[in-house]
Amino acid sequence: MSTTSIDLNADLGEGFGRWRLTDDEELLSVVTSANVACGFHAGDPVTMRRVCDRAAERGVRIGAQVSYRDLAGFGRRAMDVPPDELAAEVAYQIGALEVFARAAGTRVSYVKPHGALYNRVVHDEGQAHAVVEGVLLAGASLPVLGLPGSRFLESAAKAGLPAVTEAFADRAYTEEGTLVPRGSEGAVITEADAVVERSLGMARSGTVTSRTGREIPVRARSLCLHGDTPGAVELARRVRNRLEAAGVRVAAFA
Amino acid sequence: MSTTSIDLNADLGEGFGRWRLTDDEELLSVVTSANVACGFHAGDPVTMRRVCDRAAERGVRIGAQVSYRDLAGFGRRAMDVPPDELAAEVAYQIGALEVFARAAGTRVSYVKPHGALYNRVVHDEGQAHAVVEGVLLAGASLPVLGLPGSRFLESAAKAGLPAVTEAFADRAYTEEGTLVPRGSEGAVITEADAVVERSLGMARSGTVTSRTGREIPVRARSLCLHGDTPGAVELARRVRNRLEAAGVRVAAFA
Amino acid sequence: MSTTSIDLNADLGEGFGRWRLTDDEELLSVVTSANVACGFHAGDPVTMRRVCDRAAERGVRIGAQVSYRDLAGFGRRAMDVPPDELAAEVAYQIGALEVFARAAGTRVSYVKPHGALYNRVVHDEGQAHAVVEGVLLAGASLPVLGLPGSRFLESAAKAGLPAVTEAFADRAYTEEGTLVPRGSEGAVITEADAVVERSLGMARSGTVTSRTGREIPVRARSLCLHGDTPGAVELARRVRNRLEAAGVRVAAFA
Amino acid sequence: MSTTSIDLNADLGEGFGRWRLTDDEELLSVVTSANVACGFHAGDPVTMRRVCDRAAERGVRIGAQVSYRDLAGFGRRAMDVPPDELAAEVAYQIGALEVFARAAGTRVSYVKPHGALYNRVVHDEGQAHAVVEGVLLAGASLPVLGLPGSRFLESAAKAGLPAVTEAFADRAYTEEGTLVPRGSEGAVITEADAVVERSLGMARSGTVTSRTGREIPVRARSLCLHGDTPGAVELARRVRNRLEAAGVRVAAFA
Repeated sequence: MSTTSIDLNADLGEGFGRWRLTDDEELLSVVTSANVACGFHAGDPVTMRRVCDRAAERGVRIGAQVSYRDLAGFGRRAMDVPPDELAAEVAYQIGALEVFARAAGTRVSYVKPHGALYNRVVHDEGQAHAVVEGVLLAGASLPVLGLPGSRFLESAAKAGLPAVTEAFADRAYTEEGTLVPRGSEGAVITEADAVVERSLGMARSGTVTSRTGREIPVRARSLCLHGDTPGAVELARRVRNRLEAAGVRVAAFA
Repeated sequence: MSTTSIDLNADLGEGFGRWRLTDDEELLSVVTSANVACGFHAGDPVTMRRVCDRAAERGVRIGAQVSYRDLAGFGRRAMDVPPDELAAEVAYQIGALEVFARAAGTRVSYVKPHGALYNRVVHDEGQAHAVVEGVLLAGASLPVLGLPGSRFLESAAKAGLPAVTEAFADRAYTEEGTLVPRGSEGAVITEADAVVERSLGMARSGTVTSRTGREIPVRARSLCLHGDTPGAVELARRVRNRLEAAGVRVAAFA
Repeated sequence: MSTTSIDLNADLGEGFGRWRLTDDEELLSVVTSANVACGFHAGDPVTMRRVCDRAAERGVRIGAQVSYRDLAGFGRRAMDVPPDELAAEVAYQIGALEVFARAAGTRVSYVKPHGALYNRVVHDEGQAHAVVEGVLLAGASLPVLGLPGSRFLESAAKAGLPAVTEAFADRAYTEEGTLVPRGSEGAVITEADAVVERSLGMARSGTVTSRTGREIPVRARSLCLHGDTPGAVELARRVRNRLEAAGVRVAAFA
Repeated sequence: MSTTSIDLNADLGEGFGRWRLTDDEELLSVVTSANVACGFHAGDPVTMRRVCDRAAERGVRIGAQVSYRDLAGFGRRAMDVPPDELAAEVAYQIGALEVFARAAGTRVSYVKPHGALYNRVVHDEGQAHAVVEGVLLAGASLPVLGLPGSRFLESAAKAGLPAVTEAFADRAYTEEGTLVPRGSEGAVITEADAVVERSLGMARSGTVTSRTGREIPVRARSLCLHGDTPGAVELARRVRNRLEAAGVRVAAFA
């Protein structure tokens, strides 16, 4: 078990101009992968630059958190974007972030869709394929981060991109290993101790207790932590400390 | 005279979504350098991609036409953007375009400010320096295109960036070699034959007749052509044909 | 038949800043109702003001053409906007236009959804209801313009708003009286003479020949004309001339 | 002294979509006039609606806080907007807010420029006049709120609009009665007790101690309070309590 390793990722840089949302400095002291907003749902150029600089200083890996073009809706409103537009919009965002990663002496190392786009590409093959096209356009065969079993990871794998699975310690799972939809009773786990223990189970044994009480496998090379609510950073830190105390190596995915 | 060479540049890709402005296909058959809009005053990702693809096919060089963030004003409204914001915004635009240039098998080869930003950095040292900072952030020591004697080219040269001068065959010049401000009587030369002959003089002998009738030197390694008005593309083509007929080599600046 | 009357509506003011799309001046000489873009898919404040002024001068009625917030996609990308957001966005647009209508000495007299929103509210009860909520928020019990049988008109009627039906002379109809979806073979009728004759049939006898060759009833108090393609304005004028020559009164719906 | 009365105004609704900035609920329990953001520097339609509803419930007067179109810069970047564009943009914002004020059973009762526009119209006659034009376009002869001696208030008065002066208890004044520019030493007064006492002096005797120690007159029918920094709301409440304890009537300007 000594070789067990897990990545921790979180959304960063989700302010815009005068507005702040995520506590970027604190999160960068916890996570190993930073999903940096690229300007379409959040993320102005000054913030992108600062987050890239800080991430590079701390050795945190930078990922492009790509989104629908929807500042007013924070990227949470699904959009029927034609595939060629979506692919080009994804590539545009990756390229914009790449400048700041490179200026910080590093590079964009992976891509993760945000919000409504993340949810859409779980099932929508056309949009999943378009996002993959966008990543390919941006070159460099970047890994993508997503939900196990999603059309998105399937499409990425077919295209030769490394498909990295992630899990959510603060979300309930069905027996089939899918997320209980938000809005359903008990979908989100708010009790901090439970989140910490589920994180450990996911990282160490690759399992979690389903909503129905069964231990089920959860394939995840990364755990997604949240940083936009009060107490979220503190909880993220507890998760990391617990993992390390249990001998799990916390490191960016290979 | 056989070694005389001149670059022809024009603004391309200045539509946005449903809206078109520039006749990109036609312009690409005339110019040697394409100033591609990067999304801040015009230029959606699909258009950027298409223009880069077509430019690469034709061997036309791609430049980043960077602007204030002002779609509603087409980048023609000067803005007091703090230097750190302006630098980051410039870098963001260059990075976004770079993705499409690279996907087309080429790269962004220079940077030219657009509209109000172009005019502002003639005299405003702080903004001139900020744009140069943005170019440096984007890496690769890109050449910049601008007005001879401008703070912008001075700042670029000091920072070690190649500073490329351009001239306007359809604009009147003072005896001091500066542009007669738009709005002044006779500032814009609309007679096509005159524009063609002035282009030739600028390219072949590096001179132009000032508003007062004196022949003055015009340092220019590139001529800026316009493509957003009726007849503009036809005029641009006439300029190119005249230059080539007179033995001037039309080629991207070194 | 001497009392037969029909309204002609078209989308106007669909430029944005530097970009123009619709030939507003010409269209205002043909239509009786102007669907004015309100800034969310197109329509900057200067254009809105000018179109309202010209419409008022000519006695053309002004309607608010409300849309998803999507300049980049021209409002053609369906969005899952939560009802409270959609209602508020609709009201915002109506209010913004109202200022210019009032300054021109008239008022906003109806509301018509644009593009993807228009299509969505045909079947989506939640969004249909949200648009109606937005109209109610804006006060004054404005009539709404839409497709016969749509959830939108049903919801409007329930809420006590006048629900005005429109038809499309350049679209094929099924035997059930619904539009043949764009993309299907023969969905759009491009032959000008056919469009003119279908307009007359719709206006005079309330019927049209379906794709399968049967004469079917089409309830329509307004015909929607298009003005954003070459030849569109000329065709619109022919439609109006034909209607008037046949004794149909062309006038804004009551 | 029993008839002394002062208005308290503050900026509200300055979030956008997912982002919040001002503590609107708390501020509405303190101020008598709410400067509501209208969507150009901040202020989405849902927020505008909510703030109008709450303001109406509490009897707080609603004003349109109009701005340059600059979400990325929070309206703090001065822009050279041509007068006709600026006038139309101002009218657009007022109209959009009017819908929500009316839906809440009240109306927009005044207009106050925001940020860079506020500062610009102190000295820039062209833009000052354009803002006044925008207010006139919106109809109803709305009062405007601004700095004593500003071109803006002069232009408004000439146009027949009520010109209401305001003062800032947390800003240093020169002997001439103008604000010490931000960035100068001591420009902003951070000591809470001082701010409270200066408020009282301004409200009761119409005077304040200048930076040089002289008591100078300050014409102000309203005091501007800030609500976007930690402790700001608490300080605002202290100001109001102190004024009322001293017998000053806190009420919206007539």
